[in-house]
Amino acid sequence: MDRRSFLKNSAIGGAAAGATALAAPAYAQGNRTLTMVTTWGRGLAGVHDAAQRVADSITAMSDGQLTVDLKAAGELVGAFEVFDAVTAGQADMYHGADYYFVGQHPGYAFFTAVPFGMTAQELANWYYHAGGMELHDELGQIFGLKSFLGGNTGAQSGGWFRQEITGPEDFQGLKFRMPGLGGQALGKMGASVQNLPGSEVYQALSSGAIDGTEWIGPWADEKAGFQEITKIYYTAGFHEPGAGLSVATNRDVFESLTPAQQKIIEIASAEAHQWNLAQFLAENGTALQRLQSGGVTVREFPDSVWDAMGAASQAVMDENMGDDLFKKIHDSAMESMRASSSWITRSEGTYRNQRDRVRG
Amino acid sequence: MDRRSFLKNSAIGGAAAGATALAAPAYAQGNRTLTMVTTWGRGLAGVHDAAQRVADSITAMSDGQLTVDLKAAGELVGAFEVFDAVTAGQADMYHGADYYFVGQHPGYAFFTAVPFGMTAQELANWYYHAGGMELHDELGQIFGLKSFLGGNTGAQSGGWFRQEITGPEDFQGLKFRMPGLGGQALGKMGASVQNLPGSEVYQALSSGAIDGTEWIGPWADEKAGFQEITKIYYTAGFHEPGAGLSVATNRDVFESLTPAQQKIIEIASAEAHQWNLAQFLAENGTALQRLQSGGVTVREFPDSVWDAMGAASQAVMDENMGDDLFKKIHDSAMESMRASSSWITRSEGTYRNQRDRVRG
Repeated sequence: MDRRSFLKNSAIGGAAAGATALAAPAYAQGNRTLTMVTTWGRGLAGVHDAAQRVADSITAMSDGQLTVDLKAAGELVGAFEVFDAVTAGQADMYHGADYYFVGQHPGYAFFTAVPFGMTAQELANWYYHAGGMELHDELGQIFGLKSFLGGNTGAQSGGWFRQEITGPEDFQGLKFRMPGLGGQALGKMGASVQNLPGSEVYQALSSGAIDGTEWIGPWADEKAGFQEITKIYYTAGFHEPGAGLSVATNRDVFESLTPAQQKIIEIASAEAHQWNLAQFLAENGTALQRLQSGGVTVREFPDSVWDAMGAASQAVMDENMGDDLFKKIHDSAMESMRASSSWITRSEGTYRNQRDRVRG
Repeated sequence: MDRRSFLKNSAIGGAAAGATALAAPAYAQGNRTLTMVTTWGRGLAGVHDAAQRVADSITAMSDGQLTVDLKAAGELVGAFEVFDAVTAGQADMYHGADYYFVGQHPGYAFFTAVPFGMTAQELANWYYHAGGMELHDELGQIFGLKSFLGGNTGAQSGGWFRQEITGPEDFQGLKFRMPGLGGQALGKMGASVQNLPGSEVYQALSSGAIDGTEWIGPWADEKAGFQEITKIYYTAGFHEPGAGLSVATNRDVFESLTPAQQKIIEIASAEAHQWNLAQFLAENGTALQRLQSGGVTVREFPDSVWDAMGAASQAVMDENMGDDLFKKIHDSAMESMRASSSWITRSEGTYRNQRDRVRG
């Protein structure tokens, strides 16, 4: 009896009809639900969407072998507890911004954004072709994680303020929400910096617990509703010029998957990085117009503030250079940024200037 | 006896060990090889890599169900024959630049690049979030194709010339290689335009059959060897500010696949769009330095040339507006470009200017 006719005539084969059903027992042995926790509330535009995109793509591509069950912030663990939950095996994977975890290792900042660092495109260049992904993995090995980029917000806005910023001295004593190394830099400028998860920011700003906040950009900020509290908005910021979001899987879980399933997680995450960046950039322009129509005034920091932000950012970098792995990641990222930035300016930059000039 | 112990003790279970082997008969029923033809010779840096990336990702993620067999230009059909080969079912899918097929429909130009059109990021914004993908599909339905973006070169160089370009009159009678609507625009400026596949360009330039050529950018151009023929290189061009590459599957073939397999092709293609763009941008900067060290002089077109290119590009657009689908695609693309471009200038543009100023 050959294998096929055996299955067809077996008790299992008799009960189930057709190729799909025949495959079921073997598939069933491999079917798994992976729990994904996130640093995002369900209502947070863009960032939650990126997590859902990764979850849905993995589920759809694996044809039932993997089902990713997304638990938003607070549904299983709190936003900032996802790192520990996945390293401990309480959840299988997280989607979040890795700079929330600079306390675990400062090198994680580079996989979201560092002040005066890479744009989203420069991050992708480094990550996929100049050693970034390998360094992300080197960090992950310390904590039992297998990490990939899985979203990007693009260049983030400078943020929402109750008073206009006329010079660096205006940050003195300002209670401001900003995570990561950018927040540490703002601290060096005299601000009292808080690191709140996105779903807690509106309440904090509304109650006066903080004087101002950055969140993401016009589209996500509008959805969060900050324009209801203050009308002063700075569109360009120093702190997150292209914030990457990450997918991190418990390393034992990842290694227990088949090579095809591992590849599905890798490619689904990378696709979400592009999809999510395009989402933010497709939405931000019209959202800014709506905000302005609603009375929001748009401003830019004066050069003196950018200068102070630059000095403070460099001081934060210097402080961390004693850590060998931080320095290794920093040097790799900055070398890649310099190489790709000059070409982007020369080609796309020149083209954009000419297009604006010629088309008027 | 429960299902698992039944399988474990069956003749199959005894002969083959583990879940993978048990699944083989059902998998085998669905195993298929998909033939992918391309518009690229195997030696063409970046563009061939994008095709290979798509092929490898599909093969790896589908766990043996789909094996993509890549046939580079000339191995099964010629570079410009891939469209007809896939619509006719001679091959299952192609990877190529859709503007090679403006003869089939001028609307295909938008899915590679149009002169004075979208950058790579603006293309992604439109494609994934503002209707571009749906319009690509509308075109595909006419020809029996299911298309996705599957690569991007970034902003392309103006090209290689034997003589310096001092004004628009220098294009009069110039034999130049440039495909798509950009080539048509150059024709309006008096050039004698040729549309050669990449693998034939070196020979044509070397023999004097053409006076000049654009190809892609420093990295791919260096690999093609144009610096051996002439040393005059213009880095910014008007014709392809972010050239998308496409994966097109015969529509009957695509519809015969399972939903999971269809999703694998969609996500693998999208991932390759980002991966390939990052590849070009990561490589171009250092390649340009090598070219310059080897004696290549880098120039920019004067404003008078950009002005003439702008007018010629608009004339080409206007000529095609009588086609309803072309106009629909054009209007959708330009509306999306305007919306996202202004935000990119305001946020990332301001940031990059300040970063360059502060970091020096």
